[in-house]
Amino acid sequence: MARIVQCVPNFSEGRDIQKIEAIVEVLKNKEGFKLVNYEADKDYNRTVVTLLGDPKYIVDAVVEFTGKVLELIDMNFQSGEHPRMGAVDVIPFIPIEDITMEECVVYANETAKKINDKYAIPIFMYAEAANEKTRVKLPNIRKGEFEGMKEKIKEPKWKPDYGNALIHPTFGVIGVGARIPLIAYNIDLKTDNTKTANAIAKAIRFSSGGFRHVQAGPVYLEQRGHVQVTMNILDYKKNPIYRIFETVKMEAARYQVKVTNSELVGLIPKDTLIRSLRYYFKCQGLDFNKEMSLEEVTKYAIQYLSFRDFDTLKIIESNI
Amino acid sequence: MARIVQCVPNFSEGRDIQKIEAIVEVLKNKEGFKLVNYEADKDYNRTVVTLLGDPKYIVDAVVEFTGKVLELIDMNFQSGEHPRMGAVDVIPFIPIEDITMEECVVYANETAKKINDKYAIPIFMYAEAANEKTRVKLPNIRKGEFEGMKEKIKEPKWKPDYGNALIHPTFGVIGVGARIPLIAYNIDLKTDNTKTANAIAKAIRFSSGGFRHVQAGPVYLEQRGHVQVTMNILDYKKNPIYRIFETVKMEAARYQVKVTNSELVGLIPKDTLIRSLRYYFKCQGLDFNKEMSLEEVTKYAIQYLSFRDFDTLKIIESNI
Repeated sequence: MARIVQCVPNFSEGRDIQKIEAIVEVLKNKEGFKLVNYEADKDYNRTVVTLLGDPKYIVDAVVEFTGKVLELIDMNFQSGEHPRMGAVDVIPFIPIEDITMEECVVYANETAKKINDKYAIPIFMYAEAANEKTRVKLPNIRKGEFEGMKEKIKEPKWKPDYGNALIHPTFGVIGVGARIPLIAYNIDLKTDNTKTANAIAKAIRFSSGGFRHVQAGPVYLEQRGHVQVTMNILDYKKNPIYRIFETVKMEAARYQVKVTNSELVGLIPKDTLIRSLRYYFKCQGLDFNKEMSLEEVTKYAIQYLSFRDFDTLKIIESNI
Repeated sequence: MARIVQCVPNFSEGRDIQKIEAIVEVLKNKEGFKLVNYEADKDYNRTVVTLLGDPKYIVDAVVEFTGKVLELIDMNFQSGEHPRMGAVDVIPFIPIEDITMEECVVYANETAKKINDKYAIPIFMYAEAANEKTRVKLPNIRKGEFEGMKEKIKEPKWKPDYGNALIHPTFGVIGVGARIPLIAYNIDLKTDNTKTANAIAKAIRFSSGGFRHVQAGPVYLEQRGHVQVTMNILDYKKNPIYRIFETVKMEAARYQVKVTNSELVGLIPKDTLIRSLRYYFKCQGLDFNKEMSLEEVTKYAIQYLSFRDFDTLKIIESNI
């Protein structure tokens, strides 16, 4: 059986369709892996790409992809709601099938070395691939973003893991890492008041006293005309989506604000949804069959979790 | 203006009324402080005493009280639902008015030294008064309880802060500390299934991925015939009661279990309730006046948080 990793490069363009298509083009119809999904967000000005397949083939394709991004994006003219430190901002490797985290760390380092050798872009290794404790959490590395990195990278404690202490003038730097599946989850609020989204984010995120594995912040989506609470769930087994969704509804009630929808960015394991659907079935006293089809999982997830822009293809298992 | 601390000794008897009365008797009608409350719990087999006043006077009274407990309780014959390591289990000092945490640490040490000098009971200093990082959290110290402490205390890393590495044969050991107000909060479930209470406790407590400042566990209350989720809230500003109450209701729903009541053990600052009442008022779109009287606070707290065994005297401000 083939070894499978998920690789999720994020690049800093979410508006110019032509550029986005030209960039993802280099990842299409390649041997050994599939480009299963790419999602551009205009407000974030960022595109999240999901690759699934044999890491041996993914490494070289990601190096090629980085070259294309280098050609088309100049960070000196880029801005958006999502924090970023490079034209390709992060490249995480995630073990899915028949592969260990340790092997993913090896592939992450191989990717980092090849990118740096070829394009002289400095690389920081993060999460499970971090070489220092202060680099485990991506936000620590990214703090200051592209604009601040020019000076930050000169500090001895922020010397990059690959490359010199000098950002690439148009590209910036990249974070390359290995990690368990992370759920990028956003909840829409029917208001344009960012303060409300911020107050709710504070109620649920770890750094302000909330759930242990939740990072959250407010964002205003100009194109859509409302705010959302944007989150990373670092451990969906301990902090299941339904609990976060219901807690956000509980908090929103005090501001008389309606929770309209929620969305998942990128692919997620089926188990993420199973754990939340079980909750809603049990609340109604219904039997729950965790062997239900992916189509049923999709239908119920949309029904109970108010997902928008969701379909079966966003479940990892539908792509294997 | 007088300096005021709250001192909350917990002792390991909650059933024998005569013994309990004889013990608290030594704290009644003393100069410089008030015995404002004592609550005996039969299932826990534990009594929580609340003193409020000038620490100068409280120190000596607590030493005398410890002598009375030593006379009346033999831990070799004590058992109950609450973990405990001594006949007096803990003595925390809490700054309330015109006094710093540092001063409370000094009074805690004075108390510990006097008790050890007089009765040869070994003392561990905890929370803000801890001398070692591993002793900040009381459960670390208490692990193994009275029965296990005989051996544990002989390990070099568990040498007591006052006294020899030998437990008192009938009394055990005491934890003496200084800390911010801690909310001991319990939620009643209409079931006798401890597994349900445990599953809910795991959903909300920090150690299993829940709220950052919540410790929680299950307990079966034999006398009352139902289980409860029993909690310490270490920071009620960041983890307000209403959020915990509503989250427990959310989780209980999946087990088709009703949340009947909740209770606060010991005294609490008015602000604890204000922060939660504001939530319920705002949810209903009502104006909230945080200057409402203590009687109103009490009435609404019972109404919205389903408190049982609650009255105005449990609010610290009503005793100052």
